[in-house]
Amino acid sequence: MASVMTKHISEQYDTELAQIRELLMEMGGLVEQQVNNACTALINHDVQIAEEVRDVEARLNQFEVDLDDRCVSIIAKRQPTAGDLRAVVSVMKVITDLERIGDEAERIARMALTLADNPIPEDQYAIFRGIHNNVVKMLNRALDAFARLDVENALRVIRDDADIDRAYNELVRHCIGKMRDQPDEVEMSVSLMWAARALERIGDHAKNIGEYVIYQVKGQDVRHSGIERPN
Amino acid sequence: MASVMTKHISEQYDTELAQIRELLMEMGGLVEQQVNNACTALINHDVQIAEEVRDVEARLNQFEVDLDDRCVSIIAKRQPTAGDLRAVVSVMKVITDLERIGDEAERIARMALTLADNPIPEDQYAIFRGIHNNVVKMLNRALDAFARLDVENALRVIRDDADIDRAYNELVRHCIGKMRDQPDEVEMSVSLMWAARALERIGDHAKNIGEYVIYQVKGQDVRHSGIERPN
Repeated sequence: MASVMTKHISEQYDTELAQIRELLMEMGGLVEQQVNNACTALINHDVQIAEEVRDVEARLNQFEVDLDDRCVSIIAKRQPTAGDLRAVVSVMKVITDLERIGDEAERIARMALTLADNPIPEDQYAIFRGIHNNVVKMLNRALDAFARLDVENALRVIRDDADIDRAYNELVRHCIGKMRDQPDEVEMSVSLMWAARALERIGDHAKNIGEYVIYQVKGQDVRHSGIERPN
Repeated sequence: MASVMTKHISEQYDTELAQIRELLMEMGGLVEQQVNNACTALINHDVQIAEEVRDVEARLNQFEVDLDDRCVSIIAKRQPTAGDLRAVVSVMKVITDLERIGDEAERIARMALTLADNPIPEDQYAIFRGIHNNVVKMLNRALDAFARLDVENALRVIRDDADIDRAYNELVRHCIGKMRDQPDEVEMSVSLMWAARALERIGDHAKNIGEYVIYQVKGQDVRHSGIERPN
């Protein structure tokens, strides 16, 4: 009788956790879309898309509050231990990272609005586009690794963050040079640097998600394992 | 007998939670020190202090991992519900914010090292010093509010964040003007903007801590309550 009861509770727990993870993936999809739209708005000077990004931000915040509530409630009701508890804790951590990625996407959209008043530069934001492509791939891989609990891909995300940092530093050097040569375009360069910084931070958050995959699967905390961060 | 047992467990829980909160406050004190030292290093072009900040960062990371472990373990062992669970969840959220503040302090220290090669500017970083003073007060008030579960002070921290954002935007405008006028000093201005940005982010994290105080005391989620963030 006791074991039937236990099984019953455990099944309910699994169902609820699966629902939470599904909702988290939905939030992840929305976040990816926000990053993509914000960067598209910036690259094409598209004011309308930039404003859409700002409108969608409220939905992301609601996702965060709802998901956090569900996590606290599943812990309180089901009282998971060991691996089950780690699974919920990982979700709670990832929620925070996704919400912060949403904030960064909104910052990029705001920079897109500032830049849109100027002509599109000759290089069509070449370095920024490169960073954007890599960050989008990294974020997608991180979410995929989280959904499948795929340690190998999670490790790859953690490693890939260093490439983002390198490209970001290249962009900053490029902007500093440009500001020196064309003082009248300083404001544009500053906006572009802020946007690139936001992308670099999104890379950091994707890396965090990769680390939570490993924490969840192996119960091992790989944060602060000596990988350097950029300034 | 059952009630004696319950009381016993509850006392153990209270003791463990008190230890966790004490450790969190210790981490908070170290984080405050890091912010102060990083800004002092920047303002006085003091390379030695800047390097100390970078050395201490590793200790903060260890705090984060240890505290997170203790929180997961207290949930697994004691299975708290309602207010008790909220208390642990709040601690887990604050740990993340403190760790990120530590990261920002390290970024400021890195900028301090970049700036130290130049003469101290005439205005002796006046706007930056102003932001630093306000952020330090805000962070101190946030930690104090968390220690005492003081909602009134927590609300004040949330309100004060807007002042930081205003001062930060003033500094950015100042730097943009300076870069336009003195193209050969662009790199200095960029470093100062990054450092100020880090301070502004520290203000955001202090605000988050204020919000977790309210969440813990009132069980009410005040995040995303419509307060605007700066770019």
